Amino acid sequence: MGTFALTILGASGGPMEIGNQSVMIAKAGPERAKNWICVDAGSGLHQIKEMLAQSREANRLGINQHECMEEEIESLYESEYEPLGLFMDERSDVVRGLDTLDDTQLSKSLLSESIEVFNRIREYYITHAHLDHVAALVINTPAIRSTEKKVFALPRTAEALRTHIFNDSVWPDLLNEDSFLLNLQELQELRRHTVACISGWYVTPFRVNHGVTVRNRLPYYSTAFLIGDEPSGDAILVCGDLDSDLLSKQQFLAAMWLHLAQTVPFDNLKGILIECSSTNSTQNECLYGHLSPRFLVHELKQLSRAYNRPLDGLQVIIHHVKIGPGMRDPRLVILDEVRSLAASEALGDVAFSIGIQGYTFVL
Amino acid sequence: MGTFALTILGASGGPMEIGNQSVMIAKAGPERAKNWICVDAGSGLHQIKEMLAQSREANRLGINQHECMEEEIESLYESEYEPLGLFMDERSDVVRGLDTLDDTQLSKSLLSESIEVFNRIREYYITHAHLDHVAALVINTPAIRSTEKKVFALPRTAEALRTHIFNDSVWPDLLNEDSFLLNLQELQELRRHTVACISGWYVTPFRVNHGVTVRNRLPYYSTAFLIGDEPSGDAILVCGDLDSDLLSKQQFLAAMWLHLAQTVPFDNLKGILIECSSTNSTQNECLYGHLSPRFLVHELKQLSRAYNRPLDGLQVIIHHVKIGPGMRDPRLVILDEVRSLAASEALGDVAFSIGIQGYTFVL
Repeated sequence: MGTFALTILGASGGPMEIGNQSVMIAKAGPERAKNWICVDAGSGLHQIKEMLAQSREANRLGINQHECMEEEIESLYESEYEPLGLFMDERSDVVRGLDTLDDTQLSKSLLSESIEVFNRIREYYITHAHLDHVAALVINTPAIRSTEKKVFALPRTAEALRTHIFNDSVWPDLLNEDSFLLNLQELQELRRHTVACISGWYVTPFRVNHGVTVRNRLPYYSTAFLIGDEPSGDAILVCGDLDSDLLSKQQFLAAMWLHLAQTVPFDNLKGILIECSSTNSTQNECLYGHLSPRFLVHELKQLSRAYNRPLDGLQVIIHHVKIGPGMRDPRLVILDEVRSLAASEALGDVAFSIGIQGYTFVL
Repeated sequence: MGTFALTILGASGGPMEIGNQSVMIAKAGPERAKNWICVDAGSGLHQIKEMLAQSREANRLGINQHECMEEEIESLYESEYEPLGLFMDERSDVVRGLDTLDDTQLSKSLLSESIEVFNRIREYYITHAHLDHVAALVINTPAIRSTEKKVFALPRTAEALRTHIFNDSVWPDLLNEDSFLLNLQELQELRRHTVACISGWYVTPFRVNHGVTVRNRLPYYSTAFLIGDEPSGDAILVCGDLDSDLLSKQQFLAAMWLHLAQTVPFDNLKGILIECSSTNSTQNECLYGHLSPRFLVHELKQLSRAYNRPLDGLQVIIHHVKIGPGMRDPRLVILDEVRSLAASEALGDVAFSIGIQGYTFVL
């Protein structure tokens, strides 16, 4: 059944201008008036429209949305398309599109349905202000109807959105009190925040490191969000861009793993959505504040130590893989490298998958 | 034959996060080492990839790229698709994809070819800093290879890019001297600038008005670019967002029309790419610094007066149409309204078309 439905709107780490990081999260299972929260907004209304179009087509053909492992997704490497199953752990519960299709929607036009689903994303949680994580939040604003959307971020990210994006220069100042479209609020690090649009849910933000600035080599910060469901005690961790404590020489991730182990029983930790931008062949100085498989596995090892147990059965969904020229799809290279390293590090029987846009993980 | 090849990478006025305004411009006809300039960059590498994929598919099927008027393009209104011909004046010379397909490219992967074409855009001319006009310029930067790209804009737009985008907060500061990826330079209003990457070409920027800011109701400026080919004397005008002098109460467009009439003989004015964001049913206060058909026709009437002649045969390509719920594709509504008003205003026999992404106008 699952507690959380994570719909991947975008999972790319660039450099294409579409399909960048954004994940819609709702309560799993049918609900009459479903609301979503969204972590990051590199993708938005267009990807919702694409996903709904695909669902309509599959519906017409009578293809069950749970039978999607053979479906072909764009790859652009050895083959232009590869079967979805190659990217998934066989234990993952994955469905095409949103986890529930509301049949009453089929009478509407695709565009109207897309705008309606988009408007049921009530709250955004932004990890950092890099454009590939916020572009759709900005460009989609003319599609906001009647209800205001709330945007939450740690103070530095909120300040960047206020000063550099919604500033009447890069975009109209829609944070202005008179506009009623967006309501930007600051979160506090490690402070549990109540989600207003989904009952019983909370979000706890962790500050993490994401490389250094070009100009003065100062640390740049991003955020990871622990999202919890109080009735069940279940939780998931959703990360934006981040680098390993090994490279940042800080203890942000160590503190986060400890917090998880202390506040979420292992069996309630339903999954981790985490970046792994580049393959192991990438030099450390070319990671630019991101993880490669060796650093991802190192960090999961720290999580395993914090829990003092192997991570058997933990769902780890990898996103933000960067594409570029090469022979083999870097997502498949990374999946192989991570699985192989995890085995040699005795991490436990972790279920590694790749986040693929247009599909929902039920966790 | 034509002098200019305008490839529409994106022509939307939002609110989708993809397909936003960007036009690649090259010399028409085959050239061994073709370079492009680009006006605005709301779309980029992804749209290049989509266009090349479509061209490869059509090539495989043996479909001539000049025979494209029956091809179906996405519409999402009365029908999900409509034939391209509905959007075009029958006198327009329109081809699918880039105007020349280099056969040697077919041995490369689609991704490699896309990155190569992307890198042959040597210069960007940015009309204003709104995100739907610059997002791909930013997000595509990791795909820049060896040669630096130049970015040109009027001082206020250049300053916005420097202060608010490439600032190590919204995006790494790639304008930093050590990065060698982007070289941002300021243009001067009305000062003819020599295009380095296409011999014999110049660009003259005009400041235009684009509504007012939310906070203090101050004028917001955008740019139109006159692009000229000195050997032939031919020129085209490529506009970004702008509003009419009738609404701005300024004389920016009047001055631009006069400049055109004084410096470009009418027969050498090969085309105008101009926005028309909303239909005539839109109230003036909801235009937000954009044109509707009545204001577009009013401005073309001023151009006709400046030339003191009807605009017979002038190619006017409309872009930046906003989409939203409705019964009929707003691009088709706008085309009807513009053609009908142009007839009643005795504008001359103007060839009105809609800019459609993935197609090239040869002018």
